[in-house]
Amino acid sequence: MSFYHQGQDTLKVPFTLHKENRTRLVGRFHDAPRNSVILLKGGDEKPIEDTDIDHAFKQESWFMWAFGVAEPGFSGMIDMNGKATLFMPRMDPQWQAFLGKIKSPEEFLARYEVDAVRYVDEMADVVNALNPDIIYLLSGVNTDSGLEAPSATFKGINKHRLDLGKLRHEMMELRVVKTPAELAVMRYAARVSAEAHKATMRACRPGMMEYQLEATFMYHMYFHGGCRYNGYGNICGSGPNGAVMHYGHAGAPNNRQMREGDLVLCDMGAEYAGYDGDLTLTYPVNGKFTQDQRDVYETVYAMLRTVEAHMKAGVLWPDMHRLSYRVMCEELKKRGFLRGDVDGMLRAHIPALLMPHGLGHLIGLDTHDVGGYPRGTSRASEPGISRLRSGRVLVPGMCLTVEPGVYFNSFLLEPAFASAEQSQYLVEEKLRAFMHFGGVRLEDNVVVTETGVELLDDVPRSVDEVEKWMAGHDYH
Amino acid sequence: MSFYHQGQDTLKVPFTLHKENRTRLVGRFHDAPRNSVILLKGGDEKPIEDTDIDHAFKQESWFMWAFGVAEPGFSGMIDMNGKATLFMPRMDPQWQAFLGKIKSPEEFLARYEVDAVRYVDEMADVVNALNPDIIYLLSGVNTDSGLEAPSATFKGINKHRLDLGKLRHEMMELRVVKTPAELAVMRYAARVSAEAHKATMRACRPGMMEYQLEATFMYHMYFHGGCRYNGYGNICGSGPNGAVMHYGHAGAPNNRQMREGDLVLCDMGAEYAGYDGDLTLTYPVNGKFTQDQRDVYETVYAMLRTVEAHMKAGVLWPDMHRLSYRVMCEELKKRGFLRGDVDGMLRAHIPALLMPHGLGHLIGLDTHDVGGYPRGTSRASEPGISRLRSGRVLVPGMCLTVEPGVYFNSFLLEPAFASAEQSQYLVEEKLRAFMHFGGVRLEDNVVVTETGVELLDDVPRSVDEVEKWMAGHDYH
Ligand SMILES: [Mn+2]
Ligand SMILES: [Mn+2]
Repeated sequence: MSFYHQGQDTLKVPFTLHKENRTRLVGRFHDAPRNSVILLKGGDEKPIEDTDIDHAFKQESWFMWAFGVAEPGFSGMIDMNGKATLFMPRMDPQWQAFLGKIKSPEEFLARYEVDAVRYVDEMADVVNALNPDIIYLLSGVNTDSGLEAPSATFKGINKHRLDLGKLRHEMMELRVVKTPAELAVMRYAARVSAEAHKATMRACRPGMMEYQLEATFMYHMYFHGGCRYNGYGNICGSGPNGAVMHYGHAGAPNNRQMREGDLVLCDMGAEYAGYDGDLTLTYPVNGKFTQDQRDVYETVYAMLRTVEAHMKAGVLWPDMHRLSYRVMCEELKKRGFLRGDVDGMLRAHIPALLMPHGLGHLIGLDTHDVGGYPRGTSRASEPGISRLRSGRVLVPGMCLTVEPGVYFNSFLLEPAFASAEQSQYLVEEKLRAFMHFGGVRLEDNVVVTETGVELLDDVPRSVDEVEKWMAGHDYH
Repeated sequence: MSFYHQGQDTLKVPFTLHKENRTRLVGRFHDAPRNSVILLKGGDEKPIEDTDIDHAFKQESWFMWAFGVAEPGFSGMIDMNGKATLFMPRMDPQWQAFLGKIKSPEEFLARYEVDAVRYVDEMADVVNALNPDIIYLLSGVNTDSGLEAPSATFKGINKHRLDLGKLRHEMMELRVVKTPAELAVMRYAARVSAEAHKATMRACRPGMMEYQLEATFMYHMYFHGGCRYNGYGNICGSGPNGAVMHYGHAGAPNNRQMREGDLVLCDMGAEYAGYDGDLTLTYPVNGKFTQDQRDVYETVYAMLRTVEAHMKAGVLWPDMHRLSYRVMCEELKKRGFLRGDVDGMLRAHIPALLMPHGLGHLIGLDTHDVGGYPRGTSRASEPGISRLRSGRVLVPGMCLTVEPGVYFNSFLLEPAFASAEQSQYLVEEKLRAFMHFGGVRLEDNVVVTETGVELLDDVPRSVDEVEKWMAGHDYH
C-alpha cells in the first residue's frame, strides 16, 4: 500500500482513499450502459502572467477526489467496473536535469492505486479502442464561484456519445459526505490548523504587525504539520480590520500594526493531501479581554456553542443560521446593544446588519466545498441567509464550518439608524461606541453525526481558555 | 510623498520610483507624435480552477514597473508629457463587507504618484476623447517563457492607430538597467533573502525534512523582512536532489529526510515591492564539510569568485559563462575529476555535463527578468551556454545572478563515458564515486558597475565561513 506522507509524524494518507471514492462513484452508475467510461482532467500548471514562473500548483479538486495525484498534467478514466487508468504527461528526457528522474508509468502505477497508467497522448487511442457507449464528462457551475467545472477532452471526442449532466451531480453528492478515510485527513488538517493557531496566539504582542501572525501560522503548519499551502488567503485583521470579512487581500495585506487594546481576528487554515482546515480565532492582542470585548466575544461564543449543540443529521442548515441569529439577538439585548422584542428583531433583519455572511459552509477538498445547493434548490432571499453557501439538510459524514460573528460596520448600521423599522431595536449610542471595534468571528470545523457533531479542532475558545493559554498556561 | 512600506524597520519604497520609470520611458518616445499615449494593463486575480479562491496575487511586472500599484484590476495610461492616469476597477459598495472600505479615486491618487485616477469602465471614453495619434501597446514574446506580454484593450480600440512594436522594446531596455531607487529595493530583497538563508542554515540538522528548511526561510523573510511571497518555488534539495535544478516542484516537493553526511542545496529568494532576490547556498546538513564535499564546493566557489572578479561594464555575459567553465575544468583537474588539456575539455563540452544550466540571469521584477536577448540577438548553440538566459554586454545598473554549479548526473555522464571524444577527459572511477553526491550551486545577486560589481548579498560563502556560521559563530 502506498501513501501520501510528509515524513516524520505527519499523517499517512493511503491512496486507497481515492480508490474507494471511485468505487463509490461507479456505484452510482448502475443504470449506465456497461461499456461506458468516466473521464476527468487534472489541473495544469499556470504561469504567472508572461513569465516562466508558475503559480503554486494545487491539484484540481474533482480529479484529486478521484485519483489523489499530486502532479500536474494528468487525466484519468474510470470504467463501469471501477477499473481506473491514469494518463500521464510525456516528458522530454532533457527535463531530467530540471525536474529530476522522469517517473515511468510503472512508478506511477505503483504509487497510485490505479489499474493502468498510459500517456496523455495515448488517451484518444485508448478511448476510441474501447468505443464506449457513453463518455461521462464534468460540466456545470460552481455555486460559489459561478465558474464551470473543468472537462476532460481529446481530439475527436465529439464523435462519441457524451453525457455532460450526470457526472458532476453524482460526484458532488459523494464529495458532500466524507468517508472514514477522508475524515481522518480532515481531522489532521484541522488539528494542524489548531496547533498553528495556538502557537500564533502565544507569539502575539502589541506592536507586532498583523502579517507577523500570518508568518507564524504558516511556519507552524508547514514545519510541524507538513502542510505546504493554505486553502485560502490568510486573514489577520486587528482593530477595525476585524470587521472586514476577506481582509488580507492584495489591497489590504495584513499590514496594520497591532495596538494595545486591540482584538485580532485570525482566519487561517492548513491543507494536507488536498483537504482543508478553516479555523477562525479572535483574541486580545495583549492576552486580556476588556469588558467590551468580552461582551461581543461571549455573544459569538454563545452563538457557536448553541448551534453546535443543535446540529445533527436531519437538521436544515439554514435553520442553524436562523438559530445563530436568534442567539445573537438575545445575547446582544442582554448586553445592551439591542432592545425590544427578539422576534421583531429577526423580522426586521437586525442580525444581518451585524453578521452579513453565512453561518458556515461545506468544507473538504475545497475550502468552500462543492454541493451547497444541489439541483432544484436555491438560496433563501433573506438578508444574511442569502449569503449562506449551503441550503442542505445535514447528513452524517458532512463536514462544515460553523463560523458565527458579530461585526460593527458603519455602512450597514448608519442606514439602519435612519430606518424606523430597524432603529427601534438598535441602542444607537451603544452601537456607535463600537463603530471602530472591528468584530469577532469564531470558526470551528465539524463533522455531522446521527446524534450531533464531532468537533475537529481543539483550540482555546471561552474567554477564560483564551486568557489562560495566552498567559502561558494549559487551557483544558 | 507616499511609500510602499511593511511597517517597523522594513524598507520604505517611494512611488516616485515608478514615476521616474515613466519619465525615463517617455524620454524614449521623443520621436513619437505628441498626442500619443501608452496603455498598460495590470494583472487580474486568477481563480484556482472552478473555485472561488484565487491564486496569490502578484502584480503584472510591466505594469508594476510603471505604476507600483499593488491591487488587481487596474490599467494605466501615460501621455507624451509623462502625465499618468490610472484606471481603477469600479466595485459594488456591497463588497465593503468583504474587502473593507472601497478606496476612492482620490485615495488612489494620493497613494500612487500619478496625475489622475478614473474607472476602468471610463477608459474608452477617456482615450477616445483624447483621439491620440498613436496608442502604444505591449506585444511580444518573453524569451524565457515563450509567452506573449499582456496588452491593454478596450471596446473599439481598433479604431485607433495602434503600435505593437515600440513599447515592449523600450520598456525592456529600461527594465534591464535599474535606477538608484530600484537598486535600493534590490539591495533590500537580497538582504532579507540573505538573512533568511542564514537563519535557515542555523536551524539545519540531520533528520530534518527538507521542507522544514523551506518553512524556516519563508518565516524569516516574512516575519522579519515583511516579504509575503517568494519570486519562485523554493528549492531545498538534499543529497542526490541537489543535482535537480528545479527540485521542489509538485512532483518532488522538498520532502526528503536529510541525513548525516548530506549536502543540502537551498535556492530561495524573497520578493519586496515586486522586486526579487534569488540566492543559493549549499551546505553540509551537519555543519562540517567532508573532503569530497570540500573538493566540489571549492570548485564552485572558485567559479563564483573568479566570475565576480571579472565582471564589469563592457564584458559580454556569455564570456563570463565560458570563464566559469574554464575555472571548473582547472579546478576539477587539480582535484582529480578531470584529466588532460583544459582547452580540449572546453572544446569537448565537458563542463556542460557538470553544469547543464546558464551561469546566471537578469533579475528584477521578474526572477528571470526580461531583456536577456534583445532584438537581433540570439542564444549561442553550444551545450550549457545555450541555456544562458542573457547574451548581453554588461552595463552599469544591470542586476544579475551569478550561479555556477557542479552536479553529478548519470544521465549526462554515462553517455560521456561511452564517448571517445569526451571520456579521454573524464576520470571515470572518481566521477562514478560521486554519482549520488548531488551537486553544489552558489548564487549571488550583483549589480554591474563601471569597474566591477556590487555584491547585493552577504552570506557565509567560503568553507570556513559556512562552518563557522553553522557552529554558531560570526563568519566575517
Ligand atoms: Mn470559513
Ligand atoms: Mn537564479
